[in-house]
Amino acid sequence: MAFYIQKYGGTSVGSTERIKNVARRVAKFHMQGHQVVVVVSAMSGETNRLIALAKEVQENPDPREMDVIVSTGEQVSTALLSMALMELNVKAKSYTGAQVQILTDSAHNKARILRIDEDNIRADLNAGFVVVVAGFQGIDEMGNITTLGRGGSDTTGVALAAALKADECQIYTDVDGIYTTDPRIVPEARRLKTVTFEEMLEMASLGSKVLQLRSVEFAGKYRVKLRVLSSFKENGEGTLITYEDSEEMEQAVISGIAFNRDEAKITVLGVPDHPGIAYQILGPVADANIDVDMIIQNVGHDGLTDFSFTVHRREYENTMKILRDKIQPHIGARDVTGGDRIAKVSVVGVGMRSHAGIASKMFRVLAEEGINIQMIGTSEIKVSVVVDEKYMELAVRVLHKAFDLDQEV
Amino acid sequence: MAFYIQKYGGTSVGSTERIKNVARRVAKFHMQGHQVVVVVSAMSGETNRLIALAKEVQENPDPREMDVIVSTGEQVSTALLSMALMELNVKAKSYTGAQVQILTDSAHNKARILRIDEDNIRADLNAGFVVVVAGFQGIDEMGNITTLGRGGSDTTGVALAAALKADECQIYTDVDGIYTTDPRIVPEARRLKTVTFEEMLEMASLGSKVLQLRSVEFAGKYRVKLRVLSSFKENGEGTLITYEDSEEMEQAVISGIAFNRDEAKITVLGVPDHPGIAYQILGPVADANIDVDMIIQNVGHDGLTDFSFTVHRREYENTMKILRDKIQPHIGARDVTGGDRIAKVSVVGVGMRSHAGIASKMFRVLAEEGINIQMIGTSEIKVSVVVDEKYMELAVRVLHKAFDLDQEV
Repeated sequence: MAFYIQKYGGTSVGSTERIKNVARRVAKFHMQGHQVVVVVSAMSGETNRLIALAKEVQENPDPREMDVIVSTGEQVSTALLSMALMELNVKAKSYTGAQVQILTDSAHNKARILRIDEDNIRADLNAGFVVVVAGFQGIDEMGNITTLGRGGSDTTGVALAAALKADECQIYTDVDGIYTTDPRIVPEARRLKTVTFEEMLEMASLGSKVLQLRSVEFAGKYRVKLRVLSSFKENGEGTLITYEDSEEMEQAVISGIAFNRDEAKITVLGVPDHPGIAYQILGPVADANIDVDMIIQNVGHDGLTDFSFTVHRREYENTMKILRDKIQPHIGARDVTGGDRIAKVSVVGVGMRSHAGIASKMFRVLAEEGINIQMIGTSEIKVSVVVDEKYMELAVRVLHKAFDLDQEV
Repeated sequence: MAFYIQKYGGTSVGSTERIKNVARRVAKFHMQGHQVVVVVSAMSGETNRLIALAKEVQENPDPREMDVIVSTGEQVSTALLSMALMELNVKAKSYTGAQVQILTDSAHNKARILRIDEDNIRADLNAGFVVVVAGFQGIDEMGNITTLGRGGSDTTGVALAAALKADECQIYTDVDGIYTTDPRIVPEARRLKTVTFEEMLEMASLGSKVLQLRSVEFAGKYRVKLRVLSSFKENGEGTLITYEDSEEMEQAVISGIAFNRDEAKITVLGVPDHPGIAYQILGPVADANIDVDMIIQNVGHDGLTDFSFTVHRREYENTMKILRDKIQPHIGARDVTGGDRIAKVSVVGVGMRSHAGIASKMFRVLAEEGINIQMIGTSEIKVSVVVDEKYMELAVRVLHKAFDLDQEV
């Protein structure tokens, strides 16, 4: 007998039919004698509907009241799933974040969990109930309703697993695990049986958006056993996310090829190469609430250097305008250039640390296909390149093959 | 400076535009220096949508989970109205029933309010906030979400007025007060400036469904000054509901003509006239959860009597079947007859007690129009007759005129 936290996202509970399917799956675990706490998101589309309603009233909705509104989406899901479980003769009970209580700070719309009161849930589990908890929400010390921000239901699941010391936190999604790359681009892409937390973090931020980043960090911190599974497939084993130091097996050098087509690149040319210049360029960009991904600056010469970074594609025009109007004249840069028809392709793997030559192999493979590399960035466990958007699929395919990702380890 | 509880129903908050209108009205009171607590219902249609969703999952929805679902409707309204108030530069804050806390018993779907914690609301009012409370909902001692049943938002308003000792509880609806009868039938119908609680109870149960019955009883118990007003009309004074003993003015003899076309009549003929017969007839009807309104039994002769009662029209066939199949053979009645093309017309007024001849005048007026009276029932402050449905409008009109209800008192 095991104790599972199971989290089902908005697509998995997107209709009453799908909610009934989730109930059948949960009931099966329950019948096998396992204890189950289910965390659910709002039915897909519901959160957007509620946000739109709020914006009809207030263009910049008040954060406290916004949380009061959007938290109702998950609340409805919990009760519907509890009802569906009762129809299968399973004792079930819904909990809002406030009822649990999931105590958070008061940062509305992006609150952080501080503490979870486990007593009520524990008592219900021991009395034979399946407990259904609203994801994404909590309550602060003054009793205000808070939300954890988009995708926060994953975090709720992981936090409950940590607080209740569950055996495993299972995240059910519309994919059946983490793949070496997107199977729509590389049909030979393979489901990974395990992936490390660090790799997962790099993969998530690079576009394989299966799990919310914060929940992975959270799971890592509390050493929660986290598994990604499909809510539409029976008996899949999904992908287990592991801690590097807990694994005894030889790690594969490379775990996957990630990619992202949502970015644009911007280069400030001929920047005077003195201290503080990076801040002078990125300060106004950050002030405009524009997130920056890659940042690259090469060694300068003749007292000048070039400074490049990438932003989300929809921020491209806006960022270019800020740079041309405010920054270029201010710092005396020669020119500002950019392009939004780019893609970022990354090779990710913890094994990279101890294996030299990954980057050079990557560059060679791309060169053999005539793919020009526009920018390069690296971290401990990944190498990313920016290439022309039209080469993205080709780059992913050849790298996937070159690193033998289609072969079972 | 006064302290008002203002309740706005589902139609008044039926769209974001209407919510903005309510906000303007509330803001006006606030700007004038009054303290305001607003109670809101769910946006019209929302409660039905949620119930339908629940019934897709569970034909007879679990009462606890049903409350978790439907309570979200009011929760969304409170936040939207708070946002709309902020847009008018009014400090506003929403409260769920749990946040207030409105403590109820655990009778899900039809809970009764036990106690209201006034501290948080009081503190916010003193800090200059308009407080917006979700109607219709509360929380029980174990922290479960409860609802007061349909129309329960009126009760929330009255209960808050009693707990917080507000100067007046204003119920905003889509009519601008209580009328002597329905203006769609009698164009000369007049808005009553005042009406007593007892009259209001009789009017409400007879079809002038402006206020939820229970909220009126509640207001009477705690002597809450209750006023019905239109949420679509500016500066109306509506109708104030008064306590008979607090009025010094001479009461009008008759306050209004109520009517109801939703009923059907059933008569059990030739019933043996002995003790227990009424129970033998109505017991099985009550067991089938069929509500009975009028009950009439005249003196018998030759050991036999006739027993009549009215039920809701949609229960007519079902009730006839129960009577014919189960009751008639059992008690040896001669026959069971009935009709669902009837209407009930009532003359209501507290002044009736001290003025003889109201009933006889009513019967004379109807006779002069050739309207046959099928059944008669009376209470302390009303006389009701059942007539053929086709005469209903005529009966209401001639009675309205005969009792001078079109004249200002």
